[in-house]
Amino acid sequence: MEISGLMDEIEKKLEAYFDRLWPITRSITGNGLRESFHILQELIPLELIEVKSGTKVFDWEVPKEWNIRDAYIQTPDGTRIAQLKDNNLHVLNYSIPVNKTVSFQELEKHVFTLPEQPDAIPYVTSYYKETWGFCLSHNEWQGLPKEGEYRVVIDSTLEEGSLTYGQVVLPGSTKQEVLFSSYLCHPSMANNELSGPLAMAFLYQKIAQIPNRKLSYRFVLAPETVGVIAFLSKYGNLLKENLIAGYVLTCCGDLGDFTYKRSKDATALCNRAAEHCLHYSEVKHKVIDFAVGGSDERQYCSPGFNLPVGSLMRTPYQKYKEYHTSLDNKSFISFSSLRQTIELYENISKTLEINGPWECNVPFGEPQLGKRGLYPSSVSPDAQRENLHDLLHLISFSDGKNDLITIAEKRDKHALEFEEHLVACRNKGLF
Amino acid sequence: MEISGLMDEIEKKLEAYFDRLWPITRSITGNGLRESFHILQELIPLELIEVKSGTKVFDWEVPKEWNIRDAYIQTPDGTRIAQLKDNNLHVLNYSIPVNKTVSFQELEKHVFTLPEQPDAIPYVTSYYKETWGFCLSHNEWQGLPKEGEYRVVIDSTLEEGSLTYGQVVLPGSTKQEVLFSSYLCHPSMANNELSGPLAMAFLYQKIAQIPNRKLSYRFVLAPETVGVIAFLSKYGNLLKENLIAGYVLTCCGDLGDFTYKRSKDATALCNRAAEHCLHYSEVKHKVIDFAVGGSDERQYCSPGFNLPVGSLMRTPYQKYKEYHTSLDNKSFISFSSLRQTIELYENISKTLEINGPWECNVPFGEPQLGKRGLYPSSVSPDAQRENLHDLLHLISFSDGKNDLITIAEKRDKHALEFEEHLVACRNKGLF
Amino acid sequence: MEISGLMDEIEKKLEAYFDRLWPITRSITGNGLRESFHILQELIPLELIEVKSGTKVFDWEVPKEWNIRDAYIQTPDGTRIAQLKDNNLHVLNYSIPVNKTVSFQELEKHVFTLPEQPDAIPYVTSYYKETWGFCLSHNEWQGLPKEGEYRVVIDSTLEEGSLTYGQVVLPGSTKQEVLFSSYLCHPSMANNELSGPLAMAFLYQKIAQIPNRKLSYRFVLAPETVGVIAFLSKYGNLLKENLIAGYVLTCCGDLGDFTYKRSKDATALCNRAAEHCLHYSEVKHKVIDFAVGGSDERQYCSPGFNLPVGSLMRTPYQKYKEYHTSLDNKSFISFSSLRQTIELYENISKTLEINGPWECNVPFGEPQLGKRGLYPSSVSPDAQRENLHDLLHLISFSDGKNDLITIAEKRDKHALEFEEHLVACRNKGLF
Repeated sequence: MEISGLMDEIEKKLEAYFDRLWPITRSITGNGLRESFHILQELIPLELIEVKSGTKVFDWEVPKEWNIRDAYIQTPDGTRIAQLKDNNLHVLNYSIPVNKTVSFQELEKHVFTLPEQPDAIPYVTSYYKETWGFCLSHNEWQGLPKEGEYRVVIDSTLEEGSLTYGQVVLPGSTKQEVLFSSYLCHPSMANNELSGPLAMAFLYQKIAQIPNRKLSYRFVLAPETVGVIAFLSKYGNLLKENLIAGYVLTCCGDLGDFTYKRSKDATALCNRAAEHCLHYSEVKHKVIDFAVGGSDERQYCSPGFNLPVGSLMRTPYQKYKEYHTSLDNKSFISFSSLRQTIELYENISKTLEINGPWECNVPFGEPQLGKRGLYPSSVSPDAQRENLHDLLHLISFSDGKNDLITIAEKRDKHALEFEEHLVACRNKGLF
Repeated sequence: MEISGLMDEIEKKLEAYFDRLWPITRSITGNGLRESFHILQELIPLELIEVKSGTKVFDWEVPKEWNIRDAYIQTPDGTRIAQLKDNNLHVLNYSIPVNKTVSFQELEKHVFTLPEQPDAIPYVTSYYKETWGFCLSHNEWQGLPKEGEYRVVIDSTLEEGSLTYGQVVLPGSTKQEVLFSSYLCHPSMANNELSGPLAMAFLYQKIAQIPNRKLSYRFVLAPETVGVIAFLSKYGNLLKENLIAGYVLTCCGDLGDFTYKRSKDATALCNRAAEHCLHYSEVKHKVIDFAVGGSDERQYCSPGFNLPVGSLMRTPYQKYKEYHTSLDNKSFISFSSLRQTIELYENISKTLEINGPWECNVPFGEPQLGKRGLYPSSVSPDAQRENLHDLLHLISFSDGKNDLITIAEKRDKHALEFEEHLVACRNKGLF
Repeated sequence: MEISGLMDEIEKKLEAYFDRLWPITRSITGNGLRESFHILQELIPLELIEVKSGTKVFDWEVPKEWNIRDAYIQTPDGTRIAQLKDNNLHVLNYSIPVNKTVSFQELEKHVFTLPEQPDAIPYVTSYYKETWGFCLSHNEWQGLPKEGEYRVVIDSTLEEGSLTYGQVVLPGSTKQEVLFSSYLCHPSMANNELSGPLAMAFLYQKIAQIPNRKLSYRFVLAPETVGVIAFLSKYGNLLKENLIAGYVLTCCGDLGDFTYKRSKDATALCNRAAEHCLHYSEVKHKVIDFAVGGSDERQYCSPGFNLPVGSLMRTPYQKYKEYHTSLDNKSFISFSSLRQTIELYENISKTLEINGPWECNVPFGEPQLGKRGLYPSSVSPDAQRENLHDLLHLISFSDGKNDLITIAEKRDKHALEFEEHLVACRNKGLF
């Protein structure tokens, strides 16, 4: 990987946006979600779509809108614990309002802890079953008196409203599309999920700078599952027509090696491009097949769509113990890791841009390179012969069927290493 | 493999039938063959078909019917040896009648022994060339005096008659068929061949108990080669239309590991199902490609038919030294081995029954499992998440094209492990 | 490989022709090229085609014809060095005429040496850029005085004329064609290139002796690149219609192991046949994929043609340090190596001849071999069973689709080992 000279500046900017987005109380609907979108719009001009509560989206129904102002437990001695203002995870996400006095035994039925990770507050949701609850570290929970009265306060509303998602398209000269999709609904967790929306927003800025784009790039940011199902119910057919490759951005910022998770059809271009770039970028990584334990790729790859959508991550969901707890926080990620992930997505995009397939206009026998000034004056030094053979290789395999990834791999090089020859051939009218 | 609680009972029953069938003088035609069929009909209601001598069946002609009452050699001192009543193998199968006195030198031309296995009586036949002969252990032969007169008596008939074969179909709700084929013609040999007909008869009883069968099961028992060619001349076209998987049952009872021999088309369903069940049953086994050294799969896989017919065996023909000799006897096999082979065939049949392919009625995005009561109340314990992911995996890949074997292998499990989820999905109208 | 009893005679003949062809001053046009063709016509009746200077052949133009009578450098002390009559490589191939006095500094711009191989004279050409030059060993060049006057004399002509190439077809009973192609233009180098035209000429004589040829064999000998492009401009479409396999003969005579370079389509018959014969001939070899560093296969495999043309070599061009220097001479090759290469090409040709695919006339069930006299009287000895199974295997897989190479590899034998059975089946009307 090339190390960008702007490293410090970009990482600092990532951190600044991270810090602004972190404290907001997000869910799959509500004003915290909208506020997060507004901040991200400074970086990426997402158009926001509101889908009314009760709207049928395929097999699902958009739930009521949830908002919350405050939440806490008052212990028998009057101390307030599990306060929303201390950590968004303390309240069961989508809790109905409650304000009453309960015994320890009653409270226990509404409290979630992680005995195996006694310092972590778990992240628990209940979108489709109306109930209330609190999440505490097991250690804090263990220290509470079993006698006396507890007051539980959740000042939330669950009302008709809407679910918000956003998208924007960077158009290219053809209808062929690349999709970047991430999700926005988890409050106060760093790798899963803030790293995803941040990576997408910054990737947008990099792709906007690619000159003369051939491909269109669609960026979708939606609450997980139901949000992306709402999106697909409107745009799924368009994607089936135009999508050539797509990726779900999640778990982009931790310190682990890269993991690329394939789309369901292992031969799809999204996979070939990602695996090619990972291999020739020489970063440590592994490749895994599509599986249902995951994120929105489940919806994109559902049998009716089966879209070419994979996911380039660092350490995947469920594979690190901090996942879905308060320990997935700023200290768990690195903005340098996050920047590297963004650069790899950029590398993939540039590869897709020049991937062709190309067709040489002189298909019968080799073109005479000399008369076009493409033949080196001498081919003795090995470097020059290597360079000449790169060019001849590109021409020989450019039959209108092989794409550049295939051609490059036959010569065991990154597709982008052929970019100069490609430009020279186009300038000389050979392609 | 699950060990059935009825083990002793089934094995005892297998042994009882083995003991009744063992002494009968069988050949590819004749009354011994018919008698054997009648005994097996107690277990499996085979319909018997008689094909007249001289009938053309493809490139072959049904030979005359052979029957035999007695056979022996009387040595110069008056002792009777090589008596049919002692061992059916003593007479060259299909010998013409003879009753005369010969010298040792003349006799020698009509005697078969196995010098490398001096205690074994070889099994030799001469169906299509009229001659007479005796088979002896090499040791016995070596002990005979070279002088004096030998009387040779074979009280047989070779006359116009017919060849007998049997078949029965267990119908299912579709026209798709599974074939089980075995052969009946070898006298007094245990692994090759009595283990085959016995396995088939008992398998019939197990399959008859599968409720709501989707598939039809055809059971064919015929004299090897010419018998199955006669069967194919009548039913071959039907099989070409309806057969989805078939197996030749032979060498089912020895103590060796399993060997699965593929049909000619290695990708055929019969192979995929057998190899899947062997792998996930965790029995020791190896898989070999189709080859012409073998049994009736040669006819089923002949180029004009090329049917999906493989063979699940234990130690294959020609791979054990007792093959085609008097040493392939009751002590060479085990009724526990035989029962295990039958159970594996049953396992394969059940896998074929539920193999699909299935198609989920909610193809666009995931179905909402919660509203159907299919979502576990909590997914924290690993076992529950594993179970939920099994279900989601089944749904995600049930696109009407992948069959269950494919889907199960993508999750590295036996197809039958998905049976419960499959039933639940069908009950909820998802499939 | 079978060692022919005629070894000495063929090798002596190869050497005699080598010695006659070696000293001739060849290039891609001219009278040296024609003289070389005339000598080879004693072995192979090539029809010569002359293509006029200036003729457009695809993207190329046939250059002016080059001829040369003499060339040398006269040093300040009057000694003549770098004389054409001493070694054809001393003059830059296609040099324009020159006759003048120059300084050492001026001469230096026109002299080519190989500092890394100081004893070797390099082979350098300038077909498409008009200039003059000399090639010397670096040692000789280093010993020359840097002061004084040098006289440079090249008595050459570069005029309208023509390029010469040759071809001949050995017809078979079908239109299917095999191509053998080699190139003739390099002066005084042994492995690359004299070994190629010699191998082709002798291979012609062997193939002419194959009785009842089914296939037609086209032999093409042309100057490299532009010569074969001229040939393709006239015969390329015919090859696209009829060619089933083709090979470029080059680097056939050194002492190294065999290297087979595949055509662009790795599954093409030329590759399957060559790799089959190499494997079952049990010669040490390696197989490499098509690449643009090479010879005329680049033209045959250009995208508009993409013909099934590979190349069986010993040590390939650029893989031995003597390549394109005066050290690629008679002592670098062996006529026994060259003969073995020719025999392998013959082996490939015979394999292609009987490759089929064949179709058995008894497709339903096995044919009854006994009534055709094809069944051995006894199958006890292992050799006889092996032989019988070869026959049954051939029949079983001869479905009109599998070719003999496929069938033979399924039994892990050379296709030619089935030739006798093939003939027997055809004689009995089975095929």
